[in-house]
Amino acid sequence: MSVFSREIIVPTNGEKDILDITDLTAKKVKESQLNNGIVTVFVVGSTAALTTMEYEQGLKKDFPKILETIAPYDITYEHNKTWQDGNGHSHIRASLIGPSLTIPFISGKLGLGVWQQIVLVELDTRSRERKIVFQIIGE
Amino acid sequence: MSVFSREIIVPTNGEKDILDITDLTAKKVKESQLNNGIVTVFVVGSTAALTTMEYEQGLKKDFPKILETIAPYDITYEHNKTWQDGNGHSHIRASLIGPSLTIPFISGKLGLGVWQQIVLVELDTRSRERKIVFQIIGE
Amino acid sequence: MSVFSREIIVPTNGEKDILDITDLTAKKVKESQLNNGIVTVFVVGSTAALTTMEYEQGLKKDFPKILETIAPYDITYEHNKTWQDGNGHSHIRASLIGPSLTIPFISGKLGLGVWQQIVLVELDTRSRERKIVFQIIGE
Repeated sequence: MSVFSREIIVPTNGEKDILDITDLTAKKVKESQLNNGIVTVFVVGSTAALTTMEYEQGLKKDFPKILETIAPYDITYEHNKTWQDGNGHSHIRASLIGPSLTIPFISGKLGLGVWQQIVLVELDTRSRERKIVFQIIGE
Repeated sequence: MSVFSREIIVPTNGEKDILDITDLTAKKVKESQLNNGIVTVFVVGSTAALTTMEYEQGLKKDFPKILETIAPYDITYEHNKTWQDGNGHSHIRASLIGPSLTIPFISGKLGLGVWQQIVLVELDTRSRERKIVFQIIGE
Repeated sequence: MSVFSREIIVPTNGEKDILDITDLTAKKVKESQLNNGIVTVFVVGSTAALTTMEYEQGLKKDFPKILETIAPYDITYEHNKTWQDGNGHSHIRASLIGPSLTIPFISGKLGLGVWQQIVLVELDTRSRERKIVFQIIGE
């Protein structure tokens, strides 16, 4: 049993950008040379999130649209009154989806479905450089 | 320290079906013969999710009802225009709840509350055979 | 590689209370004397949740406000009809956010952003004593 740690930086195009990081994750698992275990993927920051989805053009539009109905951009946020950065909605959406994802791998292969990709959901209003931590534990 | 991997297939009755998989999870932890560690439970696919809830008849109806207000069935989804499968809402709901859950166990016992069960939430419109991966790491 | 387990009890002030448990988590990781690994934080019970957020006074008000629009207090819940405890909305909110969070640590330091704190979100209508489990795995 051992631990293998990697960090990467991924540039995003701000709100509504959703990035498929499945291949990146699979690559890190391969680099670890571990066969069976779990990879914890963690996005650093409070205005981005991680989840899985079928990564196709329709859902890439539908997901931000629903997030806009859950925590609309243009309602009053106490956060915005204090910080003037206009991203109160981004914070709330990020907390709802969550920053971390733990995925099993068996015989070196991630336990995902064929139409299930690991995605980084950018929720901030502006472009960001996102740090993602991969912590791989296994044997 | 070691890793113990198991996969199971669980049949569901489509949308609004919520299955209690606590006993299944506890059984896999017991089979692992590990005493202290974590179990990562992961549902394969992009239209189902995992979380915990008090598994009782009222909440089994309330949860799908609230999900219907978050991502209604009958609004326009770009996903549905392309794929004609009418489950755009299922995908969005699954991404919001998430596919993975990591639960500690101590002295062979899952760290859950008495009224807290591990549930598989079926979100697709049709019955499915769901693959669940249990990855157990501990000593 | 080893496992280090700790449980703590944290008192809350009921609905709308959000507690920063980052320092508590960091302390447990330090006590484990492990350098690289993951900490799984798990809240026991079905009316509280864990996530990360920028812990500041504005968002502490905004988050409960949005949760109230997602699963309002005063609509009909089947749960409340049976149990008369008036916390159907608490259960639904908890299941949406989720009870568990897995966070990497490298060289003894949690992989969080500067403005990203680990928070316990109390969702029940009354004050509670919340048990939180920290399961730390690493080397």
